[in-house]
Amino acid sequence: MRLRAKYLGIESGRKPVVTLCGDDAEELGVRSGERVRLRFNGREISAIVNIVTKSVRKGVVGIYDEVVKPLQVKENDMVEVEPAHFPVSLQYIRNKLKRRKLNYEEILEIVKDTVAGNLSEVEMAAFVVALEQQGLDLDEATSLTVAMVETGQHLEIGRGPVCDKHSIGGVPGDKTTLLVVPIVAAAGLVIPKTSSRAITSAAGTADRAEVLMPVTLSVEEMKGVVDRTSGCFVWGGSLHLAPADDVFVQVEYPLSIDPMLLPSIMAKKRAVHADFLAIDIPTGRGTKVKTIGDANLLAKDFIELGRRVEIKTQCLISYGEQPIGHAIGPALEAREALQVLQGARNAPDLVDKAVHLCGLIFGMAGKGGGNSNGSRLALEILRSGRADRKMREIMGQQGGNPDAKPDDIEVGEHRVDIRSERSGTLLWLDNNLLVEIARAAGAPKDKKAGILLYKKIGEKVKKGEPVLEIYAEKTTKLALAEKIVPEESPFGIGDRMEMRIREVKEIPVAKKAFILER
Amino acid sequence: MRLRAKYLGIESGRKPVVTLCGDDAEELGVRSGERVRLRFNGREISAIVNIVTKSVRKGVVGIYDEVVKPLQVKENDMVEVEPAHFPVSLQYIRNKLKRRKLNYEEILEIVKDTVAGNLSEVEMAAFVVALEQQGLDLDEATSLTVAMVETGQHLEIGRGPVCDKHSIGGVPGDKTTLLVVPIVAAAGLVIPKTSSRAITSAAGTADRAEVLMPVTLSVEEMKGVVDRTSGCFVWGGSLHLAPADDVFVQVEYPLSIDPMLLPSIMAKKRAVHADFLAIDIPTGRGTKVKTIGDANLLAKDFIELGRRVEIKTQCLISYGEQPIGHAIGPALEAREALQVLQGARNAPDLVDKAVHLCGLIFGMAGKGGGNSNGSRLALEILRSGRADRKMREIMGQQGGNPDAKPDDIEVGEHRVDIRSERSGTLLWLDNNLLVEIARAAGAPKDKKAGILLYKKIGEKVKKGEPVLEIYAEKTTKLALAEKIVPEESPFGIGDRMEMRIREVKEIPVAKKAFILER
Repeated sequence: MRLRAKYLGIESGRKPVVTLCGDDAEELGVRSGERVRLRFNGREISAIVNIVTKSVRKGVVGIYDEVVKPLQVKENDMVEVEPAHFPVSLQYIRNKLKRRKLNYEEILEIVKDTVAGNLSEVEMAAFVVALEQQGLDLDEATSLTVAMVETGQHLEIGRGPVCDKHSIGGVPGDKTTLLVVPIVAAAGLVIPKTSSRAITSAAGTADRAEVLMPVTLSVEEMKGVVDRTSGCFVWGGSLHLAPADDVFVQVEYPLSIDPMLLPSIMAKKRAVHADFLAIDIPTGRGTKVKTIGDANLLAKDFIELGRRVEIKTQCLISYGEQPIGHAIGPALEAREALQVLQGARNAPDLVDKAVHLCGLIFGMAGKGGGNSNGSRLALEILRSGRADRKMREIMGQQGGNPDAKPDDIEVGEHRVDIRSERSGTLLWLDNNLLVEIARAAGAPKDKKAGILLYKKIGEKVKKGEPVLEIYAEKTTKLALAEKIVPEESPFGIGDRMEMRIREVKEIPVAKKAFILER
Repeated sequence: MRLRAKYLGIESGRKPVVTLCGDDAEELGVRSGERVRLRFNGREISAIVNIVTKSVRKGVVGIYDEVVKPLQVKENDMVEVEPAHFPVSLQYIRNKLKRRKLNYEEILEIVKDTVAGNLSEVEMAAFVVALEQQGLDLDEATSLTVAMVETGQHLEIGRGPVCDKHSIGGVPGDKTTLLVVPIVAAAGLVIPKTSSRAITSAAGTADRAEVLMPVTLSVEEMKGVVDRTSGCFVWGGSLHLAPADDVFVQVEYPLSIDPMLLPSIMAKKRAVHADFLAIDIPTGRGTKVKTIGDANLLAKDFIELGRRVEIKTQCLISYGEQPIGHAIGPALEAREALQVLQGARNAPDLVDKAVHLCGLIFGMAGKGGGNSNGSRLALEILRSGRADRKMREIMGQQGGNPDAKPDDIEVGEHRVDIRSERSGTLLWLDNNLLVEIARAAGAPKDKKAGILLYKKIGEKVKKGEPVLEIYAEKTTKLALAEKIVPEESPFGIGDRMEMRIREVKEIPVAKKAFILER
């Protein structure tokens, strides 16, 4: 069928879409969500059909931007339109719905079509939900990892061994990576660290590092920094290491599911050719992994998947029931990291976590001799100031100010203290509520917004003493954040460990935090 | 945030959508697929956000037609935009993903938001796929049925008992309803029949009936026809009896899944206040239900769900391994039905199926005394010509020609015989391939296209004798249909029952038909 092109001046955001009126669609025998093949001047493209009643009339095909470019078609050009078969990857998705195990070729096809924009929202959601409902076995996880790497960019450092670190996330204030990278690089090991921005948290490592230096680097620029300093802090989103994952996240996020946790992480490590990988699994209430038992199972899967994709992997199961250090929010956290690197501030939990992760890496890479010696070496590098110097070297190479002092880092000028209404001991901190407050205050978009904790679990608090301070760039957002506290307290203070957690007298409103970090 | 409205002149087809540039979206803290609340001149609406890079610039919100109308906003109007919470129904969908059983209120909320266009493609797909993966228990099926009725239109006939018939479909040529309705109505019982158009088949009952009379009636018009004749043939799509189902089908169809089979059928019967319902379950290879065991389980669920929604339900498990009668395709089938009603043609399987379904209905309604007597009464009504007269009464009342002769019905003028290459007995007919051929020939969109069978299973065939004839309105489509046959034969002829079905020497290409009828 020859149809007149109407340029709609609108993008779908990802996939090629055309609009047809109901009559033409019926004549072609296609329904909404099915595909047509478009031909113009020797060029061809498949597009997903959206049937509309007003914006195009009979004989007209409305074209989205994603169609205009590959077809090089202009307004009123006559385009040949015919029904197209669905992509073969859809058949594989249907098989997955029928609980068939998918092999590598099938998964690769699905991942390719995901990246190319050949699958509709409905089809991708079906794939992701089926994986979530059925669980991903290690064979499929391996295939998915390799397929994601296959369809993305790679980083060839050219010297090894390449070390890497990842946290599955879930603890606020976790600026551990800002210590681990300079410690590992200062030891002469290569650590080409890519990080994500916050999705559901108050700050991702890319958000934190960006306070100190530009993090949106090309693969070439990243390679240059790593060549000169052995380390880097780069926002992974700019590198397209596993572009399929960016698409899957769009589906996972609204549904609060994360079935691709393992392949998503491992693909990005494989793409930078990591040899040794330390994975942090924060564990406890208010994190992703609630029990040590679950953490062990997850660690086992990581180690086995690592073996299959040739990355020696070890895991740190870490205490996650309260924020790491005292700062939450990009600028506050960057400042705290610099202070700790300089030795100007003590944050025992942050340092402990960082040196243990470095210890795992050093152990695998044969530095310092064995695990506990590895962490001793890491602490030595930190205490000696070598990690601080390495950090500044990286900051300078990435275009930041290598001489930045912690006090130079601007933090939110609008602040409010949250004070204790009684004396006692700080019994708990609610991770999820702290994140909610920090986000209400503007984090991570407003880099200077966040929370500074004055007390951590087990510390004595006097009546009227500040427990935390909320920082914001804008008074309106500060007010929004402040409003949360009277409704629900992000901390608990008591004389002693209290047995009562909560009394339930009517059906409670389910309020569950979902943590997605990539 | 106040943004300038840009009218995009495009519909999403269902839900309110706005486009934002990445900067504004980040400032608002919303991602693609999340929602914003729009305010203008005291009016409000929630819309799903699509983040784009070209078609809107900073400070501008691109609005789809679905937003323009409820907000009454014009180009360049300043609209207040703020992040909106996701609808509570999304939380219920997330709970379903976590394998929680949903109660009626939760399902009603999901169905309401489905009809209102408040759920994105991803969210609806997640719901449908989760139901498919976990299976729908009878409590949830009941809730879904009632919720679909609650959110749709109703038909109040005002006299009873109201009878109804439904086939879960899957057999080509199944024009049984064209006999059942006039037989039941001729017996003085009310049968306000709504039917669907073909989705994956060569003809739906609405497509067949439309050859004889208009079927796109309003609820009021339908009521008028039923008041005067006790029966009717109406396309259900025009009535909005269970509008949620029309949306769910959009998701189910590309995925080839049908988890809502039971509620979808029962909701439409409840909406017409059916008291007695006979359900046809065609069984066998090439239909939806492959074995008698599965058919029994499905029948049990129908009967129990019927009990819960107060519809006395009985099922006919029927032979489905070959087409019903000899014609496939809207016009060919309508002609065959008229011929059988007139007694001008014998189609023993069609008549047998129709009278048994009528027998179930008569049994439940207390007509004719017991099941077997009920079917005898049905046959009597058919043979006496009363069903034919009733049919013509209905045709006339709906605006068709009550005096139409079978030969008046136009069928495709382009035809080709498919002849047997050997003598023997017809051993099998491939339902799915016959449908594929009929659809390639143009059915159901081209009403005159289809297939006429000259032989059915067990009949003797001579070499060179035609086994079937393909009909088309267009020579191009006839050629497409004809092309299928040499690749794969829709029938098998042998001397005797052959044991060999197929030899498999390499990995076969999976080709599975999916049958969706509503």
